[in-house]
Amino acid sequence: MKDVLVIGAGGVSSVAVHKMAKNPGLFGKVTLASRRRFKCDAIAKSVQERFGVEIATAEVDADDVDATALLIDQVKPKLVVNLALPYQDLNLMEACLKTGVDYLDTANYEPRDEAKFEYGWQWAYQDRFKEAGLMALLGSGFDPGVTSVFATYIKKHLLDTIATLDILDCNGGDHGQHFATNFNPEINIREVTAPARHWENGDWVETPALSERQVFIFDQVGAKNMYLMYHEELESLVKHIPEIKRARFWMTFGEQYLTHLRVLQNVGMTSIEPVMYEGREIIPLQFLKAVLPEPSTLGETTKGKTNIGDIATGTKDGAEKTVYVYNVCDHEDAYAETGNQAVSYTTGVPAMIGAALMLNGQWRGTGVFNMEEFDPDPFMDMLNAHGLPWQVKELPEPLKF
Amino acid sequence: MKDVLVIGAGGVSSVAVHKMAKNPGLFGKVTLASRRRFKCDAIAKSVQERFGVEIATAEVDADDVDATALLIDQVKPKLVVNLALPYQDLNLMEACLKTGVDYLDTANYEPRDEAKFEYGWQWAYQDRFKEAGLMALLGSGFDPGVTSVFATYIKKHLLDTIATLDILDCNGGDHGQHFATNFNPEINIREVTAPARHWENGDWVETPALSERQVFIFDQVGAKNMYLMYHEELESLVKHIPEIKRARFWMTFGEQYLTHLRVLQNVGMTSIEPVMYEGREIIPLQFLKAVLPEPSTLGETTKGKTNIGDIATGTKDGAEKTVYVYNVCDHEDAYAETGNQAVSYTTGVPAMIGAALMLNGQWRGTGVFNMEEFDPDPFMDMLNAHGLPWQVKELPEPLKF
Repeated sequence: MKDVLVIGAGGVSSVAVHKMAKNPGLFGKVTLASRRRFKCDAIAKSVQERFGVEIATAEVDADDVDATALLIDQVKPKLVVNLALPYQDLNLMEACLKTGVDYLDTANYEPRDEAKFEYGWQWAYQDRFKEAGLMALLGSGFDPGVTSVFATYIKKHLLDTIATLDILDCNGGDHGQHFATNFNPEINIREVTAPARHWENGDWVETPALSERQVFIFDQVGAKNMYLMYHEELESLVKHIPEIKRARFWMTFGEQYLTHLRVLQNVGMTSIEPVMYEGREIIPLQFLKAVLPEPSTLGETTKGKTNIGDIATGTKDGAEKTVYVYNVCDHEDAYAETGNQAVSYTTGVPAMIGAALMLNGQWRGTGVFNMEEFDPDPFMDMLNAHGLPWQVKELPEPLKF
Repeated sequence: MKDVLVIGAGGVSSVAVHKMAKNPGLFGKVTLASRRRFKCDAIAKSVQERFGVEIATAEVDADDVDATALLIDQVKPKLVVNLALPYQDLNLMEACLKTGVDYLDTANYEPRDEAKFEYGWQWAYQDRFKEAGLMALLGSGFDPGVTSVFATYIKKHLLDTIATLDILDCNGGDHGQHFATNFNPEINIREVTAPARHWENGDWVETPALSERQVFIFDQVGAKNMYLMYHEELESLVKHIPEIKRARFWMTFGEQYLTHLRVLQNVGMTSIEPVMYEGREIIPLQFLKAVLPEPSTLGETTKGKTNIGDIATGTKDGAEKTVYVYNVCDHEDAYAETGNQAVSYTTGVPAMIGAALMLNGQWRGTGVFNMEEFDPDPFMDMLNAHGLPWQVKELPEPLKF
């Protein structure tokens, strides 16, 4: 039994559902549900047109545990694939426990009223999932997700020990807009404006947001400014690969993006503190989201490529060695295949792969798991087979910064 | 009978009311009314503390003609001084006609849903004010207002004919904020983002907003970038002084202000087109106003000076001559006197002077008037006496741009 219930109807969900429909051997019946059913229906129509496959749709408010549990009981899936907002992770885990169904997501839980990125909330479900004989797989997107699988692949095949790990996330795409975010603007801006944090010698080092910049030349994209940030996979990676002495995450941003972001911060439009407006509380960041372009509308015009990967330095057979594992994804190719650009594609495909591995039993266990706790090889093979081929390079020396 | 009813309780109103209270010989009873009475009460308290003078307060919605007329009937002033929003000009003129009371404002009417600056709407009241035996004085602020009086002063005393007129508005103040507007952000941003327009050889020439820049060295401020803009006094000046061949208006803006403005425009936050947000229409520019600092809170920290004036080139006794009439106003001095910075001060004082001249009969007539239709001399004398002293300089040559 390989039926899945997918929750959420944004770009990532659209990619995952298209990919599930494209691989009927891996999945049974697919049901897609979200708060706004017309968005599910639009995805179902595209899936039907592209691949001739029917998927079911439903309406559900993922903030409502009972309503979600009711839907799960009706649909009776083997697995709930959570591609809704990170605010809803805990509610959906509750609904899965209530109904005895496995769980997968692509981003860790965040409380709405605080931009705090920690696995603690979800790790706390460990015993309850174990006792229920259920499995929860956390963070099966690209970053987190593939970047963790790359790390375990490096550890298994390329290095004996990892001393330093740098995750480099480059979006070399151009959407032709003055300012837009590549995924949910609210989630994106919360992440970008949070202080940077990296792991060094057993401790977290915090630095101001966007204060540390390096230039890196990305394959098939070129030289880009990238900025030190915090990203959730750092927390689980240093837990599960404790030999890592330094772990950092970098993301590229253009000058125009940063100028716009700085101004929006300066005037208070990125704040998550409510403002009184005509007698009602409005969160500026949420209103900003309403005026910015819908990320899903950017697909058609976005050109260029993403390049995301891991650079690790460690030892192999006693000698220092630096390796680089990365994927390059083309925005226009991704759009041609599923109607979504590469930022959604690179997250939606790994969600589909994680779900397939859970359903076929290759990745199996009871409790709450991060990606690096499983054998990377089947996941790496599926990346190559399903549109996200990766490359390995040996670098002549460690990163100089 | 010199009683006045002042409508509106922002910075300009605060200055005007303080100045009225400071000059009990010029005014009778002062009543201050606005939609939010607590703001009127705060101004009344400050007036009491500074000058020991009682003023009355009331609550009124200036959008409601009948309610305003009822208040006018109760207060029975000789003159309504409109220091509310420009959207409300026509309603307040209606209320004055209904109750038989004179009218004064400082900025021309604008419709809420379109950033269109034209005197036509208010000039259309000409016959009705004439027939009622009432007087309406339009634009008795600094610009419009004093800049028109400077022009008629130049015409009366300094030049025989005016060929070119440039109005230069420089705010050399620093409020210490990333971004803030010196008066109502909504009105300010509508004005700044509108296309530039100037008068040349009998026609209006339109150019894109903020596209033409010149550097000018302002007395007591220094060199500043100033940008060609449209400003409403141009329309009435070329009507009443038809010999003018070219009339332009310039305003200074810093790089930081313009970067912030450009970004806010790019993302759609300066738009006056409503956006649907949680089932309700919200105008982005009005929400932006809610997150930006209240202009009235900037007074305490603003340092520096404003310098606003007219440069006219024409002939005197057959020879070409260029003259410059301007006022310099210090933000900290203005704040010390009335609790408001210079941008409010330079608008509120001329409102008080215009009101005083109407009440004592020195500026008198029936119908709708612009400032340049009256003798400039008593107004110019009062500027010197009430905190806005002016200077005349002869320039060695016309402006080179």
